[in-house]
Amino acid sequence: MRMYDLIMKKRGGAALSNEEIEFMISEYTKGGIPDYQMSAMMMAVYFQGMNETETAALTMAMAKSGDMLELSAIDGVKVDKHSTGGVGDKTSIALAPMVAACGVKIAKMSGRGLGHTGGTIDKLESFKGFSTGITSEHFISQVNNIGISIMGQTLDIAPADKKLYALRDVTATVDNMSLIASSIMSKKLASGADAIVLDVKTGSGAFMKKEEDAFALAKEMTALGKHAGRNTIAVVSDMDQPLGFAVGNALEVKEAIETLQGKGPEDFTKLCLTLGAYMIVAGGKAKDKEEAEAMLRKVIENGTALKKLAEFVEAQGGDSAAVYDTSLLPTASIVEEIISEKEGYVNRIICDEIGICSLILGGGRETKESEIDLSVGLILYKKVGDYVKAGESLATIHANDKSKLEAAKQRFLSAYTITNESVSPSELIKGIVT
Amino acid sequence: MRMYDLIMKKRGGAALSNEEIEFMISEYTKGGIPDYQMSAMMMAVYFQGMNETETAALTMAMAKSGDMLELSAIDGVKVDKHSTGGVGDKTSIALAPMVAACGVKIAKMSGRGLGHTGGTIDKLESFKGFSTGITSEHFISQVNNIGISIMGQTLDIAPADKKLYALRDVTATVDNMSLIASSIMSKKLASGADAIVLDVKTGSGAFMKKEEDAFALAKEMTALGKHAGRNTIAVVSDMDQPLGFAVGNALEVKEAIETLQGKGPEDFTKLCLTLGAYMIVAGGKAKDKEEAEAMLRKVIENGTALKKLAEFVEAQGGDSAAVYDTSLLPTASIVEEIISEKEGYVNRIICDEIGICSLILGGGRETKESEIDLSVGLILYKKVGDYVKAGESLATIHANDKSKLEAAKQRFLSAYTITNESVSPSELIKGIVT
Repeated sequence: MRMYDLIMKKRGGAALSNEEIEFMISEYTKGGIPDYQMSAMMMAVYFQGMNETETAALTMAMAKSGDMLELSAIDGVKVDKHSTGGVGDKTSIALAPMVAACGVKIAKMSGRGLGHTGGTIDKLESFKGFSTGITSEHFISQVNNIGISIMGQTLDIAPADKKLYALRDVTATVDNMSLIASSIMSKKLASGADAIVLDVKTGSGAFMKKEEDAFALAKEMTALGKHAGRNTIAVVSDMDQPLGFAVGNALEVKEAIETLQGKGPEDFTKLCLTLGAYMIVAGGKAKDKEEAEAMLRKVIENGTALKKLAEFVEAQGGDSAAVYDTSLLPTASIVEEIISEKEGYVNRIICDEIGICSLILGGGRETKESEIDLSVGLILYKKVGDYVKAGESLATIHANDKSKLEAAKQRFLSAYTITNESVSPSELIKGIVT
Repeated sequence: MRMYDLIMKKRGGAALSNEEIEFMISEYTKGGIPDYQMSAMMMAVYFQGMNETETAALTMAMAKSGDMLELSAIDGVKVDKHSTGGVGDKTSIALAPMVAACGVKIAKMSGRGLGHTGGTIDKLESFKGFSTGITSEHFISQVNNIGISIMGQTLDIAPADKKLYALRDVTATVDNMSLIASSIMSKKLASGADAIVLDVKTGSGAFMKKEEDAFALAKEMTALGKHAGRNTIAVVSDMDQPLGFAVGNALEVKEAIETLQGKGPEDFTKLCLTLGAYMIVAGGKAKDKEEAEAMLRKVIENGTALKKLAEFVEAQGGDSAAVYDTSLLPTASIVEEIISEKEGYVNRIICDEIGICSLILGGGRETKESEIDLSVGLILYKKVGDYVKAGESLATIHANDKSKLEAAKQRFLSAYTITNESVSPSELIKGIVT
């Protein structure tokens, strides 16, 4: 088999066979196929597309290109959740303990963030001493003991995807639905869960700006999950403005804790209840969404969800005192209000720009080597549809550097559009794809 | 300017500006743009195409990427000829002295062959001592003195094209008309001639198998030549069977000499007269094609064309005695007839296969490092439309190795289709594109 012939075949619009896709991915991972052939192939795929069978084969080939996490030693149905990412997305921190408190096993592999704010692991490191650098054995026994563990990507999960994504990123071949879906799903399949609940974001702060694209991706991913024998459900949710009020690592952890206390932002709470309900049903602990949601409300009310977070933090070496006293989380030295000069309704918030404010403050990574400042970020007071008076505060900014604070503030103000027209915020849950 | 943005632009179907194309080619030549980005771009060009302006910009950028031959020190109009290549194509060897004998300056850069048989330089080395490794000064003064010189590609002509072609060759991005045309024309433009006569081949032994593709390429190339201010004419000619009877280096030289003596094959003579006539008109030495053709016939009849070849060979260190006594050219040790088992009309000759016979005998290069055996090859007796009896000879095979001879013979026989139906050979000259 020669890569040249495969490029020619795809260029002509024909479908590649399973064997051809396996050959291509395994050889590329080993270095037997050079980048310049693979990038030509990716561009041919961009123009000619891949059908369902090809996409499934690509996903499986990438999933099998490295380590596959073996979770059979954990009793019961293991449920994973994946978000396509956005601004202020602290969902896992609240959701995982909530669902675990309802008896569903959470065995999750998570990554560090690149961009706006940190990833779930970075955020969890706001708890002093917390570590995700645990062994697979520790991970599995912790899930069996307390029902929840989050492990860093210490294993070599889907290295083919890692290599291929890096190549696509510099050759303008990222935005093809089959390639995006297979990239995400290959990692999920290698991570071993039985059921997968996907949170596909759409809007100005999401990778999928258009709602129809988000639904198409959701459809593609659920099909891939099912093809691999995993119960897969996707929730398409709004990311046209930040989720909740907090943007920044420790600030988001604080908001997640408040949510577990029943005092969280309305939108964020609703998203956790929705995703959580599907996870509980998938995990076989409730017969339907309504029953599952009632269970979730109960573990919030009776404090067992919060207690589960504390148990989880402690089991991975973290100081759980901060769960009950959030003033123990990292704090910034400068806290300043951002005052609105205009009066009117918040018509639009360019969501990506709010993420960039956090990045400017030091809360995110520009390159893989960047160190994150966990304490910085923003707390929004006004979201889309809210009325704001001139002189009123739009947000609080948490910083450790005056000049970074100024730069972030300017950027923040230009991300807000305030008009005389009253507007309704976009619906949070756009739809469910099963 | 970032290559990523240019790929994105072309992927979306937009035209690249002159500045963008110049940036892309100069950076790629220097190594500032990696192969994997360029191959993605080439695949995007394959799907989205390039318009006339883009193709012209690409051609100029590649022409300027290395040395440009400066021919202004040669008086008069310098005319170059280029063939897209085929089997038995010894045209330059006969044509250049014929045209030079009519007073048109021939200052030609030529290459060695890769594939079927050698290139013009390899063939000319059949004259003992002949060398194309001459300086630019020698080259120019020789053209001024005797009207003809052929120089090897000692200069760094269009290195961008060399690098880009090698990449396209392994990424299935060769067959795009703009890319093919710009590749050929960039080298021609860098070689400095004022007028260019192109011989675009079509048929089973040509790069352009289909006639319509050959015409499209001819159109594209003449447009590029004119855009660069060079008088450019293309002749589209048949390569559905070998040109003339001889295939193999010294054997082709012998046939070229016979043609200069007025005893050449009909098809080959006709092609030389046609191409030669356009070169003479372009060189300003005749008012029209008819006058030019009469001049060519005259220099053949009166022996000045043959004498010009002898002068040319001598000026570059070769033994010109072989011009008058072709038995002095390299000869093979084994000469054997290929006997037809069938009786009927030659219906078809798979032209490429005859080239491969010569390659098998040692007459061509499989890799750049291969050494060529100048003496081997074939002399065909039967061409398309000829009647052959069983037991009659189809060709003579010239070899230096028994086993290679056997392999070539088998291949030869399977390239001939002999049927009961009488057929006419394809028209030699398909058309002229100006």
